[in-house]
Amino acid sequence: MSAIGIIPLARMGEVTPGDNLAALLSEALEVEGLRIRADDILVVTQKIVSKAEGRFVALDTVVPGSEALRLGALTRKDPRLVELVLSESTAVLRAVPNVLIVRHRLGLVMANAGIDRSNIGPGTGERALLLPEDPDASAERLGKALGCAIVISDSFGRPWRMGVVAVGIGASGLPALHDRRGERDRDGRTLEVTQVATADLLASAAALATGEGAEGIPAVLVRGFAVRGVPSPAIALTRPLEQDLFQ
Amino acid sequence: MSAIGIIPLARMGEVTPGDNLAALLSEALEVEGLRIRADDILVVTQKIVSKAEGRFVALDTVVPGSEALRLGALTRKDPRLVELVLSESTAVLRAVPNVLIVRHRLGLVMANAGIDRSNIGPGTGERALLLPEDPDASAERLGKALGCAIVISDSFGRPWRMGVVAVGIGASGLPALHDRRGERDRDGRTLEVTQVATADLLASAAALATGEGAEGIPAVLVRGFAVRGVPSPAIALTRPLEQDLFQ
Repeated sequence: MSAIGIIPLARMGEVTPGDNLAALLSEALEVEGLRIRADDILVVTQKIVSKAEGRFVALDTVVPGSEALRLGALTRKDPRLVELVLSESTAVLRAVPNVLIVRHRLGLVMANAGIDRSNIGPGTGERALLLPEDPDASAERLGKALGCAIVISDSFGRPWRMGVVAVGIGASGLPALHDRRGERDRDGRTLEVTQVATADLLASAAALATGEGAEGIPAVLVRGFAVRGVPSPAIALTRPLEQDLFQ
Repeated sequence: MSAIGIIPLARMGEVTPGDNLAALLSEALEVEGLRIRADDILVVTQKIVSKAEGRFVALDTVVPGSEALRLGALTRKDPRLVELVLSESTAVLRAVPNVLIVRHRLGLVMANAGIDRSNIGPGTGERALLLPEDPDASAERLGKALGCAIVISDSFGRPWRMGVVAVGIGASGLPALHDRRGERDRDGRTLEVTQVATADLLASAAALATGEGAEGIPAVLVRGFAVRGVPSPAIALTRPLEQDLFQ
């Protein structure tokens, strides 16, 4: 196997609601002198997908209910933000000072339902940015327009490990969850690791090139990764509720 | 920022107890025509570090105690393996059929205490392979011998997501946990993401090139990643017990 390249698309302008994201990504590739190949994977941060899809909410239009007021006091978070988090979630898993972990309506267990207030554009201090309505569908649309596989990435914390990593919350054109059941290792033994979270590996690899998820570099081209297996969407990475041992 | 290269060292031979791992890695780099640069990062799988350090245990020398017998029946796992898991752990977090999640003595919350039975060499079906005694110290030794940063990687499951990713269980020469508190984003806003699990991102990026952790490719060179911040060992990635909301 030869080398895999992780190539940041650093010179992409600000994305605003209604923008044609595929066109902006095409331009950003062109600026870097890159032409999409069929086996390329474009990793796009959730933030620019949400921005293009207009998933902003003006915080002063949000009226917190009693549960949001209670959880806001408990977590020391803006109750309007907490109201938005609740409206995007199906369950609150943990709420302690500075921490609010929920099950997002997409099934994702994450802090603050993935709602973002940082770096959403100059002069927008009072806006929040929700996750895309359906990230797998967003990935599908981008993949069709650009002619390559897509991963939509987001930053995630972990219960027992410090620091954030990136995961794939949307995917198209590749197995987000790569099922290797039945394969054997070099000694002919059945693999112990049988399912690989490929979209999460790709999102984390890309995060190395986006300034570890904090620099505002919005997209990364992954070139040279040999996609194998049957395509599956990122929703396949969500562990079914009945298998959850840590609710 | 320019591209990051993820380069598998595919032509490395079997590692056996007592081997000089740094020398074997040097040879594997040479075979690929690579010369180590000071800003390279070598990601090495836990398996070959454990093998070189002779962390094998012959299963027929293990006598399961009553707790191992009970948990073996519950989880449908070999009670001798369960005895080893318990001997490597400080707590059992969850035990259900086919699942045994413990807190490893290093603080890692993981399945089976990271003990491996697959692909540990031909004709060794009855041996188990424990994690290195002190993976950060192993990384430190390798880094000194090779003159670059080191991450020792392992496959990890996650409570709410399907499939495995890779994490860094040992590190030297880089911030395993990159503390960005105080930094600001492009709009001058304080970063919401303030700590990044850099060693875990590197391990996951490398896993793309090792056949996603299952092919037996034992090491990967990461070239072009700009290491920033104060070096910290992988133990810094373990969330302190008092912050654990999901025990």
